[in-house]
Amino acid sequence: MDKVHNFSAGPGILPQEVIEGGIEALKNFKNMGLSLVEISHRSKEWEDTMAESEALIRELYNVGNDYAVIFVQGGASLQFTQVPQNLLPVGGKAAYLKTGTWASNATKEAKHWGDVQVVASSEDKNFNYIPKGYEIPSDAAYFHITTNNTIFGTELHHVPDSPVPLVADMSSDIFSRQIELKNYDLIYAGAQKNMGAAGVTLVIVKKDVLGKTGRQIPTMLDYRTHVEKESMYNTPPVFAIYLSYLTLKWIKKIGGVGPMEARNREKASTLYAEIDRNPLFTGTTAIEDRSIMNLCFVAKDLDCENKFDAFAEKHLCVGLKGHRSVGGFRASLYNALPLESVQHLVNVMKEFEKQYA
Amino acid sequence: MDKVHNFSAGPGILPQEVIEGGIEALKNFKNMGLSLVEISHRSKEWEDTMAESEALIRELYNVGNDYAVIFVQGGASLQFTQVPQNLLPVGGKAAYLKTGTWASNATKEAKHWGDVQVVASSEDKNFNYIPKGYEIPSDAAYFHITTNNTIFGTELHHVPDSPVPLVADMSSDIFSRQIELKNYDLIYAGAQKNMGAAGVTLVIVKKDVLGKTGRQIPTMLDYRTHVEKESMYNTPPVFAIYLSYLTLKWIKKIGGVGPMEARNREKASTLYAEIDRNPLFTGTTAIEDRSIMNLCFVAKDLDCENKFDAFAEKHLCVGLKGHRSVGGFRASLYNALPLESVQHLVNVMKEFEKQYA
Repeated sequence: MDKVHNFSAGPGILPQEVIEGGIEALKNFKNMGLSLVEISHRSKEWEDTMAESEALIRELYNVGNDYAVIFVQGGASLQFTQVPQNLLPVGGKAAYLKTGTWASNATKEAKHWGDVQVVASSEDKNFNYIPKGYEIPSDAAYFHITTNNTIFGTELHHVPDSPVPLVADMSSDIFSRQIELKNYDLIYAGAQKNMGAAGVTLVIVKKDVLGKTGRQIPTMLDYRTHVEKESMYNTPPVFAIYLSYLTLKWIKKIGGVGPMEARNREKASTLYAEIDRNPLFTGTTAIEDRSIMNLCFVAKDLDCENKFDAFAEKHLCVGLKGHRSVGGFRASLYNALPLESVQHLVNVMKEFEKQYA
Repeated sequence: MDKVHNFSAGPGILPQEVIEGGIEALKNFKNMGLSLVEISHRSKEWEDTMAESEALIRELYNVGNDYAVIFVQGGASLQFTQVPQNLLPVGGKAAYLKTGTWASNATKEAKHWGDVQVVASSEDKNFNYIPKGYEIPSDAAYFHITTNNTIFGTELHHVPDSPVPLVADMSSDIFSRQIELKNYDLIYAGAQKNMGAAGVTLVIVKKDVLGKTGRQIPTMLDYRTHVEKESMYNTPPVFAIYLSYLTLKWIKKIGGVGPMEARNREKASTLYAEIDRNPLFTGTTAIEDRSIMNLCFVAKDLDCENKFDAFAEKHLCVGLKGHRSVGGFRASLYNALPLESVQHLVNVMKEFEKQYA
């Protein structure tokens, strides 16, 4: 069977050389005579990989020593509670921007730990835009944003000017575009979209924001545990981290996050051009807030939608179905998706237009 | 390079066919034209694997519908806090048996959630035995045991007669021997010793013990979330679960947990016989509490230890170094370790005896 064009929203496509590197490591890791999944995580060979993974992240995002880089488990969903548990002081308040399902979940979980102020929401229009012109309370412990909204296809193209520490869920756009790290106090991201496979979560946190809540935190949920033990307090998710390591090496080989962003912008503008041109389709999000990662669009009616669904599948495009809360289609153009897949989809849309008419 | 004999304490050895099955799935999962790490976890193909994994566990341990079977992340170390958070009522008390490092950590984390009574400890003799003749308070919410103590090489060979729900950390002996499931209300185990690779934790829990703490629990840490969503509340650690699935299939093919236990007992008695016979080595644990998974022994002096260390390595035995808190050697004979590796080690010990004398 031919390799399909994978537009899945996540877990998403990975570079072929990452998958091949994973296979090699499963056969015999660093010539240890053992599979990567059988080795002790206390071996020199594994400790080196952990250190190199951290070094790659520091290099790609220019992360200084005032920040810690750690790998944890549980996905972004566990971060929704772990972030306030570690950053929101007892009796304190946190500010949240409500831009989609995941942002809403983050908001909900934070309420367990203190007062939560939603500074703005785009729920009134089914999250199809990013709110602007809101005020961030200066007495909040932090301001939480979701930089890219996977389900609704919006992205924050400007970093909010926050008077308080900024916390960002970057699960669906980590390493897809350049950032100024110093704008953020904490960044977290599940790996399974732009950084590797499911099973590991990256946290980059400014060290001096930790330990100030006045709250006792269970050992495994205290970021300081993982900072002190360099993500090896207990057995780390070895294989998932290794795929991230290989993906980070691949990003570096491409030239880093700058060239990666240029590639991603070209892919997104290629597909948005077709969505806007093709009379059978309409983009669902405010133009100025369009995501370069997840491109959401609907067909002109249900008949057209059903037929394009089958047509795209026949042409080996998978993962295009929109999330049930938006409907229609969603093309996820993560880092590893080649421009050729986007061009292929554009051709499929053009061909469908001819045949449908 | 030859495949080495892997006596690592964990992550430990896996069956070769499990590793090969993992490689096949990385290449092309169920003929989807995609790698296992690139597919949507909402695909039918993956949902089937999740369901089959649960069904295998239910079959192997004869788990009835009054129990839930879930896969979570964070390892046993996260369970140390998640168990009391979910089972220990506000203002209540839990009882713990302190039989080693991990049992001590479990005890420590439980104190965050309520009163903890250590009913007995073997710390006085560096955990080289299992305490007996203790009393379990009938007003405790549960009694927590660590069925096998990886570091110290002891194992509970009899299930305590507990007047309160029994909770067991089975991280290092899950599926290595038969159990009567109905004796337990909750079992948890990190997968990376007997059940698969690091990155996933199995929890088997009696449904009616949940939801009784009077405590609000963050969504991701509430077992009920994962029970209701069948371990798919958020993206599961797909690859780690898949290796567990393949390992469970392999255990079933061997004939189930009964034949697995017979194999394991033969391996352990083979090696203990040599430890007891060979004048250069001494077992470190009370004979009646000897683990069939982790066999700890010391050499007669430091010179002998250093020389055997090098000798064993030269003969392709890896992972034999004892934990720093015990010293000496530890041979972990997990499910996947073949009898041939044990016989090889016995021969290496005999040969060393000849050369050393």
